[in-house]
Amino acid sequence: MSVVTTPQFDQPLKIGTHVLKSRLIVGTGKYETFEVMQQALELSGSDCLTVAVRRERLYDPHGRNILDYIDLDRYTLLPNTAGCYNARDAVRTARLGREILEGLENPGADWVKLECLADTKTLLPHPVETLIACEELVKDGFQVLCYTTDDPVIARRLKDLGAAAVMPAGSPIGSGQGILNPNNIRICLEYLKDGDPDFPVIVDAGVGAASDVAVAMELGVDGVLLNTAIAHAEDPLRMAVAMKCGIEAGRMSHLAGRIPKRLYASASSPEEGVIGQKPAPRWEAAHD
Amino acid sequence: MSVVTTPQFDQPLKIGTHVLKSRLIVGTGKYETFEVMQQALELSGSDCLTVAVRRERLYDPHGRNILDYIDLDRYTLLPNTAGCYNARDAVRTARLGREILEGLENPGADWVKLECLADTKTLLPHPVETLIACEELVKDGFQVLCYTTDDPVIARRLKDLGAAAVMPAGSPIGSGQGILNPNNIRICLEYLKDGDPDFPVIVDAGVGAASDVAVAMELGVDGVLLNTAIAHAEDPLRMAVAMKCGIEAGRMSHLAGRIPKRLYASASSPEEGVIGQKPAPRWEAAHD
Amino acid sequence: MSVVTTPQFDQPLKIGTHVLKSRLIVGTGKYETFEVMQQALELSGSDCLTVAVRRERLYDPHGRNILDYIDLDRYTLLPNTAGCYNARDAVRTARLGREILEGLENPGADWVKLECLADTKTLLPHPVETLIACEELVKDGFQVLCYTTDDPVIARRLKDLGAAAVMPAGSPIGSGQGILNPNNIRICLEYLKDGDPDFPVIVDAGVGAASDVAVAMELGVDGVLLNTAIAHAEDPLRMAVAMKCGIEAGRMSHLAGRIPKRLYASASSPEEGVIGQKPAPRWEAAHD
Amino acid sequence: MSVVTTPQFDQPLKIGTHVLKSRLIVGTGKYETFEVMQQALELSGSDCLTVAVRRERLYDPHGRNILDYIDLDRYTLLPNTAGCYNARDAVRTARLGREILEGLENPGADWVKLECLADTKTLLPHPVETLIACEELVKDGFQVLCYTTDDPVIARRLKDLGAAAVMPAGSPIGSGQGILNPNNIRICLEYLKDGDPDFPVIVDAGVGAASDVAVAMELGVDGVLLNTAIAHAEDPLRMAVAMKCGIEAGRMSHLAGRIPKRLYASASSPEEGVIGQKPAPRWEAAHD
Repeated sequence: MSVVTTPQFDQPLKIGTHVLKSRLIVGTGKYETFEVMQQALELSGSDCLTVAVRRERLYDPHGRNILDYIDLDRYTLLPNTAGCYNARDAVRTARLGREILEGLENPGADWVKLECLADTKTLLPHPVETLIACEELVKDGFQVLCYTTDDPVIARRLKDLGAAAVMPAGSPIGSGQGILNPNNIRICLEYLKDGDPDFPVIVDAGVGAASDVAVAMELGVDGVLLNTAIAHAEDPLRMAVAMKCGIEAGRMSHLAGRIPKRLYASASSPEEGVIGQKPAPRWEAAHD
Repeated sequence: MSVVTTPQFDQPLKIGTHVLKSRLIVGTGKYETFEVMQQALELSGSDCLTVAVRRERLYDPHGRNILDYIDLDRYTLLPNTAGCYNARDAVRTARLGREILEGLENPGADWVKLECLADTKTLLPHPVETLIACEELVKDGFQVLCYTTDDPVIARRLKDLGAAAVMPAGSPIGSGQGILNPNNIRICLEYLKDGDPDFPVIVDAGVGAASDVAVAMELGVDGVLLNTAIAHAEDPLRMAVAMKCGIEAGRMSHLAGRIPKRLYASASSPEEGVIGQKPAPRWEAAHD
Repeated sequence: MSVVTTPQFDQPLKIGTHVLKSRLIVGTGKYETFEVMQQALELSGSDCLTVAVRRERLYDPHGRNILDYIDLDRYTLLPNTAGCYNARDAVRTARLGREILEGLENPGADWVKLECLADTKTLLPHPVETLIACEELVKDGFQVLCYTTDDPVIARRLKDLGAAAVMPAGSPIGSGQGILNPNNIRICLEYLKDGDPDFPVIVDAGVGAASDVAVAMELGVDGVLLNTAIAHAEDPLRMAVAMKCGIEAGRMSHLAGRIPKRLYASASSPEEGVIGQKPAPRWEAAHD
Repeated sequence: MSVVTTPQFDQPLKIGTHVLKSRLIVGTGKYETFEVMQQALELSGSDCLTVAVRRERLYDPHGRNILDYIDLDRYTLLPNTAGCYNARDAVRTARLGREILEGLENPGADWVKLECLADTKTLLPHPVETLIACEELVKDGFQVLCYTTDDPVIARRLKDLGAAAVMPAGSPIGSGQGILNPNNIRICLEYLKDGDPDFPVIVDAGVGAASDVAVAMELGVDGVLLNTAIAHAEDPLRMAVAMKCGIEAGRMSHLAGRIPKRLYASASSPEEGVIGQKPAPRWEAAHD
C-alpha cells in the first residue's frame, strides 16, 4: 500500500455512500485486448472502474463480456451512460446498469456516472440534457456523478439538483489537452465546496499525460477520472503506473502547500543556507 | 521498493561512474530543523543528496554539522559549490568538498555539482564563469555536474568541455515557476543526446510543485534536482512524498508514449468503445 | 481612415442588418466621468457602443443621462440587458431599450445585446436563462447578440434559436484574463461557421490588454466587445488607442496567414537570405 | 501619421544617436521578390531597416542589389552581421557594412546589429562569441545593437561592454513561437533599465503573429525587430500592416496601465455601472 493512503497523509475519497482508497477512477474502454486492460487497471492502483453498460459496449467482437474480465471483489464498478445523446437514453441506460449490477450483487448498483453528450463529432457534454437527466436520476434514487463542462454555473446547478459528485471536463474527451481552463475549475471549487468542503469534485476527461493529472489535483479537486490516456498510450502499462503516481503527486503537492511563485528569489543573507526562516511546519489533517 | 525501479519498467540513472536508483536529487539546505530534513529526505525516495560544502554552510546556528544528520550509508553525497560567484571560488570550494568527503571515505568525493552564480539578487547562473570553472574542474579529475541556464549553446559547450552531466535551470533558483521554456529544454536534449542518448540531462532549480517535476520528466530529461520546493513548503514531509511521486509519474509518462493532443476526438464508429483500433502495444526497453 | 478598413484589406463586419466599420464594440459603463468616456470612445475607433438601458444605469449620481453624452450621429447604439439575472428581466429590459431607442429614432432599436447573468459574485452568464431569453426575444423580432460562456454546445444552440450573433466570453467579466480557453473558441467557430462563414462570432468579456484582443482576432472571431479594460485602465485614453490597434493587428494577422511554429528554423542553404523559397503570395479576399 | 507617434501619446525611440519614429525594426531578407519587399516595408510603418551586408546576401539570383530597391531617404539602414558564426567574421562583416554605408553616405554607417550565431541548425546566438565581438566593435567606434539570448546575465554583460542596445530573442530565429520566457525578459528589463530607464531593450527574433509583438511591448521593451514573420506570411502585405498595428497596440497598452487580473470580478454594488470608483486617471509622460 502506498504511503499516501495512510491516515497520516490523507483521507479516503468519499462519494455519496462509497469510499475509495485511490483518487483515480479509470475507464475500461478502448483497450487493445481485455488482457492488457486487466494489467493496466491493476497497475493504475484504482479501486473504482467505470463501465459502459449499453449492451453493444459490453461485448467485444468475439462476443466476450467485459465484465468477465474484471475482478468484482477487487473493484467497485461505476456504471456509465456512454453513448447517450439525450436525457431519455441516459436515464434508460442508467437503469439498465443498475439491473446488471444488481444481478451481479455489485455495490455499484446504486450509483451512476451520467454522461450525456451533444454529438459524436466533439463528444462535448450536452448541458441541458445533463441537467434534465440528473434531476430524473436523483429522483429515481441514484447517486449521480455528473460529467459536465467546466462551466461553474452548470456545475452548481447539478449540485443543487442533488448530484453526489460533479465532474467537470478538463478538455474534450480523448483530446489529451489536460486542464485547458484552470480558472473555471477554481470557480467550480469555490461554488461547490462553499460551506461543504467534502463535496466531491472530480476532473473527468481530457487528461493526456501524468502531469495533467498532477495539475488537476494541485488545483484542489478530489480525484480524476480517465480512460483514453492509458488505453491509447503506446505502452498502457507504463502509463497506468504514471497515472497512479501522478494522482498521488498532485494530491500530496496540494495538501503540502507549495512555495509561492516569484520572478526570482534572492540570497537573503550570508547565513541563508542550511537553516531557513520559514514559519514552523504544520502537520495537520488532510483538509486545508 | 517502487515498481518503477524494477528492470521491467526502467533503468537506473547513470551519471559518470555513479548509479542512482531514484531520478530525484534533493538539496539539504533551508530546512527548519535537521530533524525535519531527515524525514523529508527519507520520504523523497532519493538516494543522492547535494550538500553545500562552504564551511559557513555546513554548520547551523547551534554549531551542529549537517553531515552528522545524514546517513552516509544510505545516501551518495553530491558536494556543491553554492555561494560561489566566480570560477576561482567555485574551483576552490569543489576541492574543499573533495577533501571533506575523502575524509569521510564517501564515494561522492570524486564528483561535484558546479554552481557559479552571477549575483545574490537573482541567483542566476553566470555562464562564462561556469564554463571556466567546468574546464578547470574536469582537468582536475572531477566528474562535473554543471548547473547552468537553459541556453542550449552553453549547455553543449559544457558537455564539450567534459561535463559528466548538464543541469539546465527550469526557472530561477527558489522562484517556484517550474519549466518556463520547454522549447529550450527540448533543444538542450537534442544537442546533448545527439548520438549519445544516455548523456544525463537534469533539470536543476525552479521547481515549485510536483506537477513541475512531472512536466520536466515528460520532456525527456533524466532527472530533477530540487531543494526549496520541499524545504519551504508548508508541509515539507507531504511535499517530499509529492516529489517522489512526481518524478515517477513524469518518467513513466515519458516512457509510456502519450496520446497526441487534439482539438477534440470523435466517436469513430458505433463499435468504438470497448476495443480500440490502436497499433499493438510495444513493451520495450526504457530508452525510446 | 485606417488602411485596414479599405476594401483592399478587409470587409466591414455585418451583424444581422447592421454594418460596422470597426470590429471593436465598446461599452459605456464604469468611466470616471462622461468626459473621459467621450474621449476614450472616440479614440477607440469604434462605431458601435453598447449601453445598459436599465433606468438606474442610464443616470450618473448627478442625474445626468449618459445618452446626452453620446453623439448619436456617429455611433450605432447597441442596448444591453446588463444587470439582469433571469430571462424575464432580460426580456423586459430589452423591450425597454427598444422603446428608448425608438424614441431617439436610433437604428439600434431593433437589436439587443442579451446579457443574463448567474449571480453578482462572478458575473458568469446563466446558460439556461440565456437560452430562454434568446428564444423569446427572437420571437419578439429582435436581432439578438447573445453573450454566453465559451461552451460550444450552448453557442450552437443559441444560433439554432435564431441569434444574430453569438458572443462567447474570453474569461469572466472584468477579470482581465484574456482568452482562457482558445480551444473552446476554436470549436465555437467550427460549429457556428460550418457552412455559414459570415455568421458573426464576437468575443465579449475578459479582455485586459491589447494583446488579448489581438489573440482573440487571430483565432478567427469577427470582433471583440469590451468595456472595463479601457474604462478602468490607469489611462483610459491610451488604452482606447491600444484596443483600436489591437483589433486591427489581430484581424490583419489572421487574414495574412501566419508562419508555422517550429522548435527552431534552420539556415536551409547558403543562398538562403535575400530571396526565399516560399510559395507565391496570394492576394485574396478577406475570408480565408 | 499615427496618433501614437504624437508627443501627447509617446516619445520617439532613441538608440545611441539615432532617433526612430516607429518602434518596429524590420528585416529585408527572405521576401519572394524585391517588389513585395518594398510594399511590405512601407506598410509596416517602420523607418529603420536591417540589411545583411555579407556580399552574397546583397544580391539576388538575378544579380540585382537589394540596396537599389530601398528608398534611402526614407529609411535608416541598420547593417547586420547575419551569416556570421564567430566573433572574427562578425567584426569583419560589421566593418564591411560600415564601408558600404559610408559609400552611400547613409547615416547607418556608424551602427550595426551584431548577430553571431552558434550553428546553422538552430540559428541560436553564440553567447561567448557575441561578447567578444561586442567588445571589439565598441572599441572600434560602432554603436552596437546586440542580438542575444534572453539570458539576463549575458544581456547585462553586453551593456557593461558598451552596447548601445541589447536585443534578446523571444524565441529562436524563424520559429514563430513568440515570447517563450516572459520571466527572463522581465529580469533583462530590471537589469538593463536599473537607474537607466531609457536604455533600449528590443525583442529580436521569434515573433510569429501580431499578438506576439503586442505581448513583447506590453512587457515593457522599447521595440521589436522581425523579418520572417512578415516575409514568409502567406500574405506579407497584410502581415506588415498587422505588425505595425501590433507594435502600437502593445506600446499603448503598456503605457496605459492595464487592469489587474482577477479570478473574477464582482458587481460591487447596485450603483456599479455607469460611473466607476477607480482613482483619478493620470495623464503623464510616456515613461512609467
